Amino acid sequence: MSWENNVRRVVPYVAGEQPKKANVIKLNTNECPYPPAPEVAAILHQFDYDSLRKYPDQNVSDLVAALAEYHGLSKQQVFVGVGSDDVLSMAFMTFFNSDKPILFPDITYSFYDVWAELHRIPYQCQPLDDNFCIVKKDYLIENGGIVLANPNAPTGNVTNMSVLEEIIQANQESVVIMDEAYVDFGGESCVPLIEKYENLLVVQTFSKSRSMAGMRIGYAMGSEKLIKYLNDVKFSFNSYTINTVTIAAGVASVKNKAYFQEIVGKVIATRERVKVELARLGFACTDSKTNFIFASHKTVPAKELFEALRAQEIYVRYWNKPRIHNYLRISIGTEKEMDSLLCFLENYLGECGELQ
Amino acid sequence: MSWENNVRRVVPYVAGEQPKKANVIKLNTNECPYPPAPEVAAILHQFDYDSLRKYPDQNVSDLVAALAEYHGLSKQQVFVGVGSDDVLSMAFMTFFNSDKPILFPDITYSFYDVWAELHRIPYQCQPLDDNFCIVKKDYLIENGGIVLANPNAPTGNVTNMSVLEEIIQANQESVVIMDEAYVDFGGESCVPLIEKYENLLVVQTFSKSRSMAGMRIGYAMGSEKLIKYLNDVKFSFNSYTINTVTIAAGVASVKNKAYFQEIVGKVIATRERVKVELARLGFACTDSKTNFIFASHKTVPAKELFEALRAQEIYVRYWNKPRIHNYLRISIGTEKEMDSLLCFLENYLGECGELQ
Repeated sequence: MSWENNVRRVVPYVAGEQPKKANVIKLNTNECPYPPAPEVAAILHQFDYDSLRKYPDQNVSDLVAALAEYHGLSKQQVFVGVGSDDVLSMAFMTFFNSDKPILFPDITYSFYDVWAELHRIPYQCQPLDDNFCIVKKDYLIENGGIVLANPNAPTGNVTNMSVLEEIIQANQESVVIMDEAYVDFGGESCVPLIEKYENLLVVQTFSKSRSMAGMRIGYAMGSEKLIKYLNDVKFSFNSYTINTVTIAAGVASVKNKAYFQEIVGKVIATRERVKVELARLGFACTDSKTNFIFASHKTVPAKELFEALRAQEIYVRYWNKPRIHNYLRISIGTEKEMDSLLCFLENYLGECGELQ
Repeated sequence: MSWENNVRRVVPYVAGEQPKKANVIKLNTNECPYPPAPEVAAILHQFDYDSLRKYPDQNVSDLVAALAEYHGLSKQQVFVGVGSDDVLSMAFMTFFNSDKPILFPDITYSFYDVWAELHRIPYQCQPLDDNFCIVKKDYLIENGGIVLANPNAPTGNVTNMSVLEEIIQANQESVVIMDEAYVDFGGESCVPLIEKYENLLVVQTFSKSRSMAGMRIGYAMGSEKLIKYLNDVKFSFNSYTINTVTIAAGVASVKNKAYFQEIVGKVIATRERVKVELARLGFACTDSKTNFIFASHKTVPAKELFEALRAQEIYVRYWNKPRIHNYLRISIGTEKEMDSLLCFLENYLGECGELQ
């Protein structure tokens, strides 16, 4: 007998690489290529550092209030965590305690099965169809909960709102989590359905459209009951998760709607241009409504392209997994970064004879 | 059947009040009365806010390295989390998975039983003796793990190092967690025992002696094996828990040893003076080696004093719990704050006729 017998053994999630080198074109973790709102800089540069000796507001009140106002909800309908991963992990722990399996697609955010394993939740992966779309009837069976990313990752495509509503409505004995990390780039949010369905939890993040991945802010929105249960678990885990600087920076970001719309608009414009260019180079892309493109070349294997790009310090994401091993997930960078990517691909594929 | 049947229902921890009013003398949550190291201000005020668009270093490498150097350990022996509560909660989840109960004192940090309930860990509280000391033989029985605060909270007193080593040595089939949140104020750390005992995890925090409660940094030190298991669980929960600003601010704090020693020295000097003054006013105090005093008046009930102080905007901590319902926990503030407290008590007890 050893202490090691009582260890919770898990296979952790593997995030995209964060290279320390400069000069890398980093299109592998769906970060925003533009800075956060300028008011975030002001918060940092004028911060009263003496206030750090006190604990932060454990209720994160100012940020909760700002988000509630932004989304037209009450403060009792908003929960803030350390990035949407923290929020989702906490939600799995809080709401998925049935003996029946929770359901999510076979191709989706690859943290879902990690959380299920960590929290010892039975789960069942439902295959997407050949177009990477969810099959509605797969989510109309008995279950212990449902989690869907919309838009989905890494495919980028969206599920029709009427299909999602039908799934939420049919599953009022389970909590349905809608992971909307990428929704600001052209998806339609389920937030308006919160008033109708007590069992719907919608999760969003500051890491993509708000350009604050380094600050770690995610949040959930739902019925007052759901949010209360989530807070009970959070306050049983760690009373103070969001630090004082982060609360103030988060509020500053939410208040500047014009800047938010500007950078999201730029990312969308770049994405649509790059989709056209990639098609010209022989790629098939899903109809991504996110800040990334999911692309497969008609002849050159994704793995080969991934490695060729990496050798040129252009990082994209590649998974050697069933069904998606011939796809690259390419984050939308600046116009200039995307030009470098396209230029490299044009030369590479030209040398391969693929553009003749 | 409702979704509510599958909710994890818990009774959350209740932290000390964080009043929003100014002019409060806040001696209720063991915060440091002095600011963080001045280099922390420089980090904030010169921060490159554009870097926030990228995810932070998920390995928290710079802060891990600084702490490893400070404590004379390797980087593989240090784990950083969002305050010591996050570290402890994660450690409970990682190491306490036995059917046998974990052991901790009846009077100790009141989050331990909350974590046990949250993570569904069986537990057994071992009564402290009449002097609030742990009874060694209570920890030499079969168990699923042990957690001890040293110095203990809210009593403030320390357990002899030889007793602790005997407990650690006798329990090599369990993980023994030593919660050293207050150790810098005069306790003796178990860190030197890490090299001898693979099953020992020592947890410390930036919230007290480093005056950074608002920044949320805690850390664990232990054998490489323990730290690896802890990281696996962390990376299965949330890859990026410590934000970019926090990492830099934490490093700045660790590097300034002189300032750290200065403010810790001031807190200790104030504590010892206040102990003497309180004795003069008829209080019995434990021999606290922390940044708080645990005090009981010989005639006036603690609850009455707590309420009288609160009416004067002097906040201390009081628990209406068995064995400690006649004690106040008073954090050490500035000399001036403690003078206000003592002055009020002198007048109040004088009026009560207690000083005649």
